[in-house]
Amino acid sequence: MNVQTKPADSDPAAIVRDLGQRAKAAAATLRTASTEAKNTALREAARLIRAERSQILAANARDMEAARAGGLNDAMLDRLLLNDARVEGMAAGLDEIVALPDPVGQVIEEWARPNGLRISRVRVPIGVIGVIYESRPNVTADAGALCLKSGNVVILRGGSESFHSSRAVAACLRRGLATAGLPEDCIQLVPTTDRAAVGALLQATGFLNLIVPRGGRALIERVSAESRVPVLKHFEGLCHVYVDRAADVAMARDVVANAKMRRVGVCGAAETLLIDRPALATHAGPVIERLIALGCEVRGDAEIQALDPRVTAASEADWRTEYLAPVISVAAVDGVEGAMRHIATWGSGHTDAIITADAATATRFLDEVDSAIVMHNASTQFADGGEFGLGAEIGISTDRLHARGPVGLVELTTYKNVVRGQGTLRP
Amino acid sequence: MNVQTKPADSDPAAIVRDLGQRAKAAAATLRTASTEAKNTALREAARLIRAERSQILAANARDMEAARAGGLNDAMLDRLLLNDARVEGMAAGLDEIVALPDPVGQVIEEWARPNGLRISRVRVPIGVIGVIYESRPNVTADAGALCLKSGNVVILRGGSESFHSSRAVAACLRRGLATAGLPEDCIQLVPTTDRAAVGALLQATGFLNLIVPRGGRALIERVSAESRVPVLKHFEGLCHVYVDRAADVAMARDVVANAKMRRVGVCGAAETLLIDRPALATHAGPVIERLIALGCEVRGDAEIQALDPRVTAASEADWRTEYLAPVISVAAVDGVEGAMRHIATWGSGHTDAIITADAATATRFLDEVDSAIVMHNASTQFADGGEFGLGAEIGISTDRLHARGPVGLVELTTYKNVVRGQGTLRP
Repeated sequence: MNVQTKPADSDPAAIVRDLGQRAKAAAATLRTASTEAKNTALREAARLIRAERSQILAANARDMEAARAGGLNDAMLDRLLLNDARVEGMAAGLDEIVALPDPVGQVIEEWARPNGLRISRVRVPIGVIGVIYESRPNVTADAGALCLKSGNVVILRGGSESFHSSRAVAACLRRGLATAGLPEDCIQLVPTTDRAAVGALLQATGFLNLIVPRGGRALIERVSAESRVPVLKHFEGLCHVYVDRAADVAMARDVVANAKMRRVGVCGAAETLLIDRPALATHAGPVIERLIALGCEVRGDAEIQALDPRVTAASEADWRTEYLAPVISVAAVDGVEGAMRHIATWGSGHTDAIITADAATATRFLDEVDSAIVMHNASTQFADGGEFGLGAEIGISTDRLHARGPVGLVELTTYKNVVRGQGTLRP
Repeated sequence: MNVQTKPADSDPAAIVRDLGQRAKAAAATLRTASTEAKNTALREAARLIRAERSQILAANARDMEAARAGGLNDAMLDRLLLNDARVEGMAAGLDEIVALPDPVGQVIEEWARPNGLRISRVRVPIGVIGVIYESRPNVTADAGALCLKSGNVVILRGGSESFHSSRAVAACLRRGLATAGLPEDCIQLVPTTDRAAVGALLQATGFLNLIVPRGGRALIERVSAESRVPVLKHFEGLCHVYVDRAADVAMARDVVANAKMRRVGVCGAAETLLIDRPALATHAGPVIERLIALGCEVRGDAEIQALDPRVTAASEADWRTEYLAPVISVAAVDGVEGAMRHIATWGSGHTDAIITADAATATRFLDEVDSAIVMHNASTQFADGGEFGLGAEIGISTDRLHARGPVGLVELTTYKNVVRGQGTLRP
């Protein structure tokens, strides 16, 4: 397979400098590449991933062997594993991105000035994006394809455990680029597992315009603390569902069950349930009953514990824990104000929902809760680019600048201001 | 006047922590404040600035005296100086911001999903913004008012030379807030001239969501290098005008003269003129003649020097110098490709213009030049929020993320995603 050549000097700083030079050169071409060329590259990459499945699986077997020898736990091994279905999933993901509209060149706004100037804001790529991720090899395909379609050159740095798998996938993407007549260096994989290369990337303000970290808390915290390059991060989803006194009981029961238990490992999974005090007698029972029936451990404050002997005691740590497991913490609160106070104190600004039939209370919650996604009468598990209709996403931004919530193709672009005159002079 | 109280502990880190606690508390209120309350605060502040002009001028006299004793040069003294007209200018600036539409709550986009979810993106304030600036006391009023109107709490850190002037202006803004029933701490001035306070602000990721540096190269570079808080910066305006072979000669002459000489000290002033080789015989003469007639020093490459004995020699340093003075560097280039190569090599990504009657050539330039603002047949001096119709601006962003070009009220906001369901569950 067509892997990148590695510079003779294997010093991580020199490797990153070389990646940067190649990336900048590629960016100048990709910035104005046609949608058709980008789609051709993606289609061809999807074809190659399917055609070279056995080589990709062989590379993955090498990673899996080393990971088992290195004592990775079962959850990590599962994230690392590729099989026929997962390889097909990667290829199908590329096909989906082909089908999405190209954001580059879209006119966001257009207006005229009294002096005759016509001004527009037009979407353009951000430039060169570094994606730093952990062991899932499919991120190589997803992130590479999303950056490519949005006109951004990408430098991928996967976990060292998945190095061979990612290299095999990246080679397909690069061959796709070559087939489309685009620079292969539009997609580069850091060609070393040396951790110092991550440090060098985080300082690379000379060529990187953005870093997107994808992974667990330790990775996000390291990147946020060290990076000199702007970061768009997907931090924790400590999502709340607030059941108001005016909630329909059956709706509350079903939405809470879905928000918590549909999939417990996703960032949009609910972690804390807040129940309005007047609803304790009417709503708490059915909601908690359903959660327990679905196999969820329920930890509550004193008032919640008093309702059901199966509820264990919640400690302060529970209010700040993203379980990503079949566990939920439950607190009694004083109305929407109490719920908003709890969310402001303990939430992570990701996704928070209210269940109520009272429109005024819902509006207050939606207006005042300062999270990337706020919901009324809907499951927090809808916090997802696909469910929003954006197509594939690179993550859910919990940052405040540039993009909040799902980050899809449009959010991977910026804009330029285009001014058209007729020899117009400023007085 | 109603100045801030300073914490007993005058350690800069403790002062900044105190500012942060007050800012966070104020932000929770200001985020959802009504347009009317914000406008009342601004109107009252404008009234107070006018009513207390003599106190403001007295505070400024104190700063001016210290500055003269400290040996500040004339340009810096002029920037620091307040007089009746400048005080009135500050008050009038606040009135203008009152008249601008409030971006908070504006719905950017709205759509429905097949499952019945209704999703919208609604503008919300960024949160707490730090503005670090130099000696102009009017920035205290401008930046404070722009942040307030856009729902952002602001921490202002002016130059130490303007400390007393800024404190007097900030006191009017704070009294305006109190009159409107809003927390005075929506606008705080760092109550010390200790430079260590800037260092503490740049690390204050716990409460600052954004830092906007306004000032010269040294300030911008320090903030960019040290800040752990996201920065929206206004770096140099090394603006180019390219005169194409298909340019109208009179238009080229007039636009170049306006772009360079209307005001030489603004960031949108042209610094380099690029002339298409086939236009050297026809266009260069009238364009250079006009510049020289207006008192501009012209520095050219060998081909340009050969055209006129008054043109002095440009060195490589001239291609990367933002003169902000009546000086222009001129180079002959090979068509639009040569111009774009020169701009990509030496430009600062601020504002670049093409003069041509050829629509295809113009489109190429507008599409391919990767600057915040690109112009066709218009003066680069239109690079200004007011001229764009955005109203007052806090600066021109030369960064790529969040906002590019003029940063007005809208660009000082972010958005949240609002999802409305009917008990909707994710399958």
